[in-house]
Amino acid sequence: MSLNNIDTNKQVAAIDLGSNSFHMVVAKIVDQDLQIVSRHKQRVRLALGLDSENNLDNGAIERGLECLAMFVERLHGFDAGNVRIAATHTLRIANNSASFLQRAKEILPFSIEIIPGEEEARLIYTGVAHTQTESSSKLVVDIGGGSTELIIGEAFRPTLLNSTQMGCVSYTKKYFDNGKLSSKNFSKAILSAQQRLEALAPRYRRLGWEVAFGSSGTIKAIKAVLVGMGYDDGVITLKRLHKLIDTLCDFNSIAQVSLSGLTAERQPVFAAGVAILTAIFDSLSLDDMHFSTAALREGLLYEMDDQLQRTDIRMRTAENLAKKHFVDMVHANNVRLQARDFLYQLHDTFNLKKKSKLYSLIEWGALLHEVGLSISYQGFHRHSSYLLRYTTMPGFNSEEQLVLATLARFQRKQLKRQELPEFSLYKKKHLEVLIRVLRLSIILHGQRSEEPRPTMRLIVEEKDNWLLSSTEEHWLINNKLLHADLQTEQTYWRMAGWTLTLS
Amino acid sequence: MSLNNIDTNKQVAAIDLGSNSFHMVVAKIVDQDLQIVSRHKQRVRLALGLDSENNLDNGAIERGLECLAMFVERLHGFDAGNVRIAATHTLRIANNSASFLQRAKEILPFSIEIIPGEEEARLIYTGVAHTQTESSSKLVVDIGGGSTELIIGEAFRPTLLNSTQMGCVSYTKKYFDNGKLSSKNFSKAILSAQQRLEALAPRYRRLGWEVAFGSSGTIKAIKAVLVGMGYDDGVITLKRLHKLIDTLCDFNSIAQVSLSGLTAERQPVFAAGVAILTAIFDSLSLDDMHFSTAALREGLLYEMDDQLQRTDIRMRTAENLAKKHFVDMVHANNVRLQARDFLYQLHDTFNLKKKSKLYSLIEWGALLHEVGLSISYQGFHRHSSYLLRYTTMPGFNSEEQLVLATLARFQRKQLKRQELPEFSLYKKKHLEVLIRVLRLSIILHGQRSEEPRPTMRLIVEEKDNWLLSSTEEHWLINNKLLHADLQTEQTYWRMAGWTLTLS
Repeated sequence: MSLNNIDTNKQVAAIDLGSNSFHMVVAKIVDQDLQIVSRHKQRVRLALGLDSENNLDNGAIERGLECLAMFVERLHGFDAGNVRIAATHTLRIANNSASFLQRAKEILPFSIEIIPGEEEARLIYTGVAHTQTESSSKLVVDIGGGSTELIIGEAFRPTLLNSTQMGCVSYTKKYFDNGKLSSKNFSKAILSAQQRLEALAPRYRRLGWEVAFGSSGTIKAIKAVLVGMGYDDGVITLKRLHKLIDTLCDFNSIAQVSLSGLTAERQPVFAAGVAILTAIFDSLSLDDMHFSTAALREGLLYEMDDQLQRTDIRMRTAENLAKKHFVDMVHANNVRLQARDFLYQLHDTFNLKKKSKLYSLIEWGALLHEVGLSISYQGFHRHSSYLLRYTTMPGFNSEEQLVLATLARFQRKQLKRQELPEFSLYKKKHLEVLIRVLRLSIILHGQRSEEPRPTMRLIVEEKDNWLLSSTEEHWLINNKLLHADLQTEQTYWRMAGWTLTLS
Repeated sequence: MSLNNIDTNKQVAAIDLGSNSFHMVVAKIVDQDLQIVSRHKQRVRLALGLDSENNLDNGAIERGLECLAMFVERLHGFDAGNVRIAATHTLRIANNSASFLQRAKEILPFSIEIIPGEEEARLIYTGVAHTQTESSSKLVVDIGGGSTELIIGEAFRPTLLNSTQMGCVSYTKKYFDNGKLSSKNFSKAILSAQQRLEALAPRYRRLGWEVAFGSSGTIKAIKAVLVGMGYDDGVITLKRLHKLIDTLCDFNSIAQVSLSGLTAERQPVFAAGVAILTAIFDSLSLDDMHFSTAALREGLLYEMDDQLQRTDIRMRTAENLAKKHFVDMVHANNVRLQARDFLYQLHDTFNLKKKSKLYSLIEWGALLHEVGLSISYQGFHRHSSYLLRYTTMPGFNSEEQLVLATLARFQRKQLKRQELPEFSLYKKKHLEVLIRVLRLSIILHGQRSEEPRPTMRLIVEEKDNWLLSSTEEHWLINNKLLHADLQTEQTYWRMAGWTLTLS
């Protein structure tokens, strides 16, 4: 029995696999609040290992895995439900991130989620909002190694958020590759960042905010250096940033920089971070900014503390999406209940875990399978799939969105199994179970009638022979249209190498 | 000088290239109303020439071209603006429809639009609504050779419409291929049609209607045969359809059918049409249906009579779409005005026609280029493109939607010219003009400021060297961010083999 189990308080951990560093934070849940137990940080510089074609080199992969191997020591005895691991920009864009995840699986007994940029932004906001208790509206800025997040929110709810592909590691590569600290290099970097922000900035300025916070390493370092320069309040302003740039340019080269408050680890990517923040101050007409110790990993933690909260966010996301696309909610809900019921019936057969995420996924999938109808009826399953894949969906990670998109894509018509995408958190076998369950649920409610109906039973006989029956004899056959639909479905299954038997 | 020009009344013509027949109707516009001058019809059976991979065989192409060659004789001296030609299901789905259009171009001095199914439905409704003057709500059903349209509307406005891929030619192939008229063949065909209607029918039943009309050849023939059977009022009911099926089954084979009111031309596909209509009656719980002489071609004519009307429909479509996706209309409108102005400046350089459709296309494109932002900021140009390609957009034909989707796709980032799709109504050269004009317009309004600005000038010096200047000297260069954006754009142009000069 491990120490963690002796402790009566629940312990939770969050790891964030950033482009510059990996962070881990462990906390105890005490009286509805989080008490941080330990923090761990390792500079991994994942983003440096990306080549121009977005392939992650072996060195970077090894550095990342080494760090995870170290972190996992601390997580001995932790329940999988109490650890959340999120990867951001670099693993989001790397072509070979799947192979990183594959190898990480061998080290970690926990799953890694790659989260979309907007989801990262939302989580950062959650982290900051939980530690900055003012209820006034907040702007939160987070400059990472590969992406920068900008969020405006009120209390715990973000109202405008974006993630844009610029970060201190990638900007160092692009604009300070020669190692020189010249005003020319700074101007180029700042202008480029302003171009990136150009389309976004007006929306932020229009919406406005009362207090601005910066989170994570880049802004932490800027604050520390400003304090070192004599600005004791640690507040960041545009004027001070320009002073800082002048000071940096006095050093000529990055290697020569020596500033009070600047760590050796931060030094190589510091100038690029300063350039990006300067551009943000300018584009958003920002007056001043305060540093917030909380960031992405705290966001992950606070959501774990109250799983319900995340469910609520996802529920709100799903409801908003359904509403925006005029989904027939009565029908969607009937399909959802049927699908959930079928999945429970198959629980033992497919060795599903007790709290398997597959349960919530099939429910979201059922609720949202018809969103594409708002584009057009023809090929609506493909439209649903596109929307679920690419729409910003607060509370869902990339792979969850891919699952929903896949369920939508395979909800009807031919079962082209070779077109199933690869998943890293879910088994193909389980995905194919969800697909079949959803299809049958849709067919059984195809006529959208509100008449009472018998209970359906689903049994898997051999490996792929599914038996569908109803408590009322002949019900599946007496309804001619339903029977015809099921016969068509039997053909699709046969073509996919499966068997559906009606009994 | 042709006869048409002597006539003081404007003459207009519409041709519909259906899956079963091609129709032409010529009309005079007299006192705000249409007076039909002549009707022409040719059974072409285009759909029969489609193989299982949707390739149109040579025989069908030849039959179609022969018919067009005949029609064109009648259109001598007609102004291009007074002729509208629409192709429906078969050319919509044929892989090689582009080569048909190419060859048709050599025969016809008019352009052929392939219209989406929903647009076909809308036009059919327009045709029927103009001839059935009751203002009560109407259901209109049109069973064509390859597709069936179902529309509910009030007065001149359709409120629910769909096009589904079943028609009397394709159903004859599928369910009456053996030529037998058995109740088994009928049952199969009816059930299959019911399956197709299953997801749609509840929405129609829920919305309801007061009077039901059927249009086009299939329903016209059914009415004529019912009258021949003694039902003098020509009203179609489910009971009478079942009687008709019984009567048909008495003949055993299609070839033997001999019924008063049935033409030899209609005979081969009559049974399949009866099966489809029976399924519609059953699925929609229809009581009775009346025949309407007006159909798609009348819809085309009535819209030509009042070009403004179609503009209105498109305006409503664009506005609805923009609203649904929360488009920043102030910005979109600024871009629109700038783009229109640029295109006028280039009018002579590119030999644009006086009333070229390119003008309206760039305006719609500008209004809608940001619809994809509602999906996500990242890659929003691709999302805009997807939405404009696949969303049901009343008033726009398929190629117009493709133009809008292409403009959206190419609105920013690299100019991958090799990814430009093929167009049949527009020149690639002109598309590339629109793309460049739109991009420059977007960049010039990138900062979304409301400040007054100088007038912009666009001149094309040599073939592909575009000169951009402003009436206020150095304006393009003094605004640093704008200048940087234009420099980035210059790079994109250079990579695409073009030159952009700022002067």
